[in-house]
Amino acid sequence: MNAYTKTVDERRMANAIRALAMDAVQAANSGHPGMPMGMADVAAVLFNRFMTLDPAAPDWANRDRFVLSAGHGSMLLYAVNHLLGYDDMGMEQIRNFRQLGYRTAGHPEYGHAKGIEVTTGPLGQGLATSVGMALSERLGNVRFGDLIDHYTYVIAGDGCLMEGISHEAIDLAGHLQLGHLIVLWDDNKITIDGDTGLSTSTDQQARFAAAGWHVLSVDGHDPDSIAKAIGDARKDARPSMIACRTVIGFGAPNKQGRHDVHGAPLGNDEIAAARRELAWDHPAFDVTADVYSAWHKIAARGAEARKTWEASFAASADHDALQLHLDADIGPLTKAMMDYKAKLAKDQPKVATRKASQMALEVVNAALPFTIGGSADLTGSNLTQTKGMTAVNARDFTGRYINYGIREFGMSAAMNGLSLSGLFKPYGGTFLVFADYARPAIRLAALMGVPTTFVMTHDSIGLGEDGPTHQPVETLASLRAIPNLTVLRPCDAMETAEAWEVAMASTKTPVLMALSRQGLPAMRKTALSENLLARGAYILREPYGGRDVTLIATGSEVEIAMNAADALAEGGIKAAVVSAPSFELFGQQPDAYRADVLGNVPRVGIEAAIRMSWEAVLRAEDGFVGMTGFGASAPAEALYKHFGITVEAVIDAAKARL
Amino acid sequence: MNAYTKTVDERRMANAIRALAMDAVQAANSGHPGMPMGMADVAAVLFNRFMTLDPAAPDWANRDRFVLSAGHGSMLLYAVNHLLGYDDMGMEQIRNFRQLGYRTAGHPEYGHAKGIEVTTGPLGQGLATSVGMALSERLGNVRFGDLIDHYTYVIAGDGCLMEGISHEAIDLAGHLQLGHLIVLWDDNKITIDGDTGLSTSTDQQARFAAAGWHVLSVDGHDPDSIAKAIGDARKDARPSMIACRTVIGFGAPNKQGRHDVHGAPLGNDEIAAARRELAWDHPAFDVTADVYSAWHKIAARGAEARKTWEASFAASADHDALQLHLDADIGPLTKAMMDYKAKLAKDQPKVATRKASQMALEVVNAALPFTIGGSADLTGSNLTQTKGMTAVNARDFTGRYINYGIREFGMSAAMNGLSLSGLFKPYGGTFLVFADYARPAIRLAALMGVPTTFVMTHDSIGLGEDGPTHQPVETLASLRAIPNLTVLRPCDAMETAEAWEVAMASTKTPVLMALSRQGLPAMRKTALSENLLARGAYILREPYGGRDVTLIATGSEVEIAMNAADALAEGGIKAAVVSAPSFELFGQQPDAYRADVLGNVPRVGIEAAIRMSWEAVLRAEDGFVGMTGFGASAPAEALYKHFGITVEAVIDAAKARL
Repeated sequence: MNAYTKTVDERRMANAIRALAMDAVQAANSGHPGMPMGMADVAAVLFNRFMTLDPAAPDWANRDRFVLSAGHGSMLLYAVNHLLGYDDMGMEQIRNFRQLGYRTAGHPEYGHAKGIEVTTGPLGQGLATSVGMALSERLGNVRFGDLIDHYTYVIAGDGCLMEGISHEAIDLAGHLQLGHLIVLWDDNKITIDGDTGLSTSTDQQARFAAAGWHVLSVDGHDPDSIAKAIGDARKDARPSMIACRTVIGFGAPNKQGRHDVHGAPLGNDEIAAARRELAWDHPAFDVTADVYSAWHKIAARGAEARKTWEASFAASADHDALQLHLDADIGPLTKAMMDYKAKLAKDQPKVATRKASQMALEVVNAALPFTIGGSADLTGSNLTQTKGMTAVNARDFTGRYINYGIREFGMSAAMNGLSLSGLFKPYGGTFLVFADYARPAIRLAALMGVPTTFVMTHDSIGLGEDGPTHQPVETLASLRAIPNLTVLRPCDAMETAEAWEVAMASTKTPVLMALSRQGLPAMRKTALSENLLARGAYILREPYGGRDVTLIATGSEVEIAMNAADALAEGGIKAAVVSAPSFELFGQQPDAYRADVLGNVPRVGIEAAIRMSWEAVLRAEDGFVGMTGFGASAPAEALYKHFGITVEAVIDAAKARL
Repeated sequence: MNAYTKTVDERRMANAIRALAMDAVQAANSGHPGMPMGMADVAAVLFNRFMTLDPAAPDWANRDRFVLSAGHGSMLLYAVNHLLGYDDMGMEQIRNFRQLGYRTAGHPEYGHAKGIEVTTGPLGQGLATSVGMALSERLGNVRFGDLIDHYTYVIAGDGCLMEGISHEAIDLAGHLQLGHLIVLWDDNKITIDGDTGLSTSTDQQARFAAAGWHVLSVDGHDPDSIAKAIGDARKDARPSMIACRTVIGFGAPNKQGRHDVHGAPLGNDEIAAARRELAWDHPAFDVTADVYSAWHKIAARGAEARKTWEASFAASADHDALQLHLDADIGPLTKAMMDYKAKLAKDQPKVATRKASQMALEVVNAALPFTIGGSADLTGSNLTQTKGMTAVNARDFTGRYINYGIREFGMSAAMNGLSLSGLFKPYGGTFLVFADYARPAIRLAALMGVPTTFVMTHDSIGLGEDGPTHQPVETLASLRAIPNLTVLRPCDAMETAEAWEVAMASTKTPVLMALSRQGLPAMRKTALSENLLARGAYILREPYGGRDVTLIATGSEVEIAMNAADALAEGGIKAAVVSAPSFELFGQQPDAYRADVLGNVPRVGIEAAIRMSWEAVLRAEDGFVGMTGFGASAPAEALYKHFGITVEAVIDAAKARL
């Protein structure tokens, strides 16, 4: 504790965090005081001596990033941002912690307030997202030199390090030697259920070292030791993990060090006792001028750095190149895609949409320098790498392709980090069924409104022999369920090109593409300036003289619908065919357009998946040709026949409704 | 290679695996020859010298377990089971690898053939499931002594060890010191995209050691070294990881050691070359008598051991207790639950359904000794621990509660392993929103038809202040999408009791309970011998003289429906109320029952979640009161009001349809 006397300011700076955390949680009558109080000293030192940021320019590209992976300790972040002087984090926000309409949500929500770099709370994901941020920094540094040269700091708790995703994150960060990533582990030996010894025995330092990290240990309540460790970490070329030995709820004399202090208000008596213990003799929600002054110095220092940077930026030979990344201007894509689509109309290639995706990506990656591709070890299957796109490694960040390894969740979270960095537009591939592995990060992208692109191939029983473990059946429905996620299932090369246009144009919504393994004939044979896929659903075939039935299909099943319509026509039944690559986009169309597309005749939906989610375009009395359970292992054609996803089944379903 | 000359039989035993793998993949024109050929020597030694199993009694409780976590190498398992003489794995199965109607699916499917202990393919999960099997063994050993005393062997690949779940699995296994778990890592330095060096630099041995494992390294093509390592591993009290340095596709002279050999047929030329290289001069699908004889000796040894065990079992003082576990007889529960439900009818407690779950569990755990509870570090929130239920630790396996740690996925996979062991009926808790973290294991439970019980509390915006990261909105829909998963959302203590009856009675279907954080009044006020929840939906309130509208609700929203019905009655509108705790169970009811429950008047559904999945009981023209996007951070009552999930909204929705 002697260290405190040497650094009175930092002690008071930390105690301000503690007091605000105690008071806000008490006022809300819910929340987590333990972590903010335990890590307050670390946070004070980190911000006071190291962080470079400017509250007046929260989006400054070269700011240091601070990620509170242990998101339940949100009051630490809100207190820090309040003390730093962010103009949207006044005391009324702190007073109304966890209340409707305020920015101070139970867990930090990206977009709710300035200075929240990422939504955290689902444990481990802050850490994994920070890997993408730190990767972005290295990618930016090799491209733009000193203009992008900052650190990414993470506070992670025991929960973060117990979650599996932490393994994917630290393995990837160690492999790429992301030296500007510094993780401050809140080593408080406490989880919700009690002592960490109840459920883990892992030597975390040894584990991080095994993954190629630089590892340090400090007393998390000794400012100078903390500072020395962070200083050493910044100098080391490896990513660093600093184990900060802390006392959870530090300062609450009767409750600290116990799991009860993790997630419940301390109570007025204990708060009073803590005020005495901490020598913090100010009323609730009262911060004295000296403390504000100390914190505001950090902001002033950052503002100065930002101004210096702006001048360098303006004068830099890299100015325009960096500006292009910052703007994420997709203008250059328009003409290139129009040319490409004209070629598609001419060639009418029969290709799998995963292959069509690669063809479109050749155009996208050539036009837009800020895309970063990758795959979770399925590059040759996902077809996510384009010509001349070299892979990044620890010694060379000039490339634009990431070998994410067999880490679907880690990849997805890292992509979110790349998106959040503001410098790059990431996409990455895996098999559609493994969206389940990545799902928490897909949800977080949707919740944050971050335009990550998920490229998911092998999108149905059409993948064939790999069998039910690999065959998505319920996966499309489960993804369509996620709010603010655009799911696209294009039917041919033209729609796939349009899908990439939609993905690149998206700024507030992640896009997930479901792509076929098997070859699909061209359905769209003319190149249009309008992006039809962007309407979500549209009429692909309209019979003369009115419809008897509307066949609606997505992706690989559009071909079946078209063939069924042909066969029905021979029998005198007039079938329209609607291609419906995105239920979400279709749902955003005007009612009149929707009514026109769907028609007022019986409908039959066709998708090699379960019916759930088709209520978007089908009524209870309409037909559906698809799956009702898990798939099987066999060649694709055999499976389509076995499960009755055939032209004949569509004809039967149509006739039964006429 | 000298070791081979000393163990000619094992070399030929291994080559039989290699030849069958090559031939079957070639015949199927798809599949993965690389792993079976690389790990054939390890498998031959493991089975020849260590495995105790009896193909004639595949469910023998004390058999050694073999888990092929690297499930793409399924031909290794099929070849072994064929060679051992499993009567459902004749050569016609091998010849028809990956074909419709055969047991030899692309990845091993539990239940498709004897000797497949678990469905694998989704990487890392075999390993994580084996932790549950090894845990079951220790739990069984402390209860039944030598009657349960076997090993669980796992073959894991680089993919398994890169997936995050491997961290959760090895951390938990190391913590619990599951000494009879032995992982054979196929250390072939190759992933699909190429060298493992493309995407990982982790020192796996150091990593496992950091988690408390015993670590060994061997040449995976040297039988005596392999045998020594396995022998040492069996003696060590810690779980063991043996890094087996192998050459992927071993024996294919021009392709071995490269990633191309991982997942594609070798081609006839290379197969011929491999036959020469391996001195395996037999036609395709031809295994000579000497090789069968060597493998059948293993089976004979196992049959002998099994007979000896049967005698011990018959004579054992533990016979009846073990038999009770093996039968999983829930008979004793019937009377106890009837008494409990009578008490509920009398007390009519207003409790959260998570609390009601704990109350029911008191009865369940008292009646059934084979339940094993647990939570992913949310014991006090999930309320999964009952009186006198002590936690298991590395020194004491007498307890019945597992502190799974902050590892939702690892917990779920481990529970699947406990289920598969045949000795225990596991349940475990987390927050409903974190079903996303566990989803791949929930899917696998459903695919396998394993009756694991997932206890998921805090099931809506009703959890309040923790905010949108913690509030399930799309989660119920996404879970209802999974085939063969029964989702239950009980509305009060009585339905929660019935939910536990359903869960305990389930033998082929996993059950997931969505339980409220907030208190809910008693809706069901009489104790019935019939389990109404088991019908999926039923009439809770039927107005006199016919209905004007049917209000359908689940869980915490049933109260709103009942209050709305009261209010509507005051206005002269006759509303029936249907409680619909399970759409899956309701879907299994006779049409007449369903029609009777739903009625032929307008309907309004009420659930604090999105509408998707409600097409099970609603038509397009029916009303729905629920969520349309993510939640927010605020007290629960404020959120219900803010999002319009209120009695007034239900009344409006009903009136709009009359």
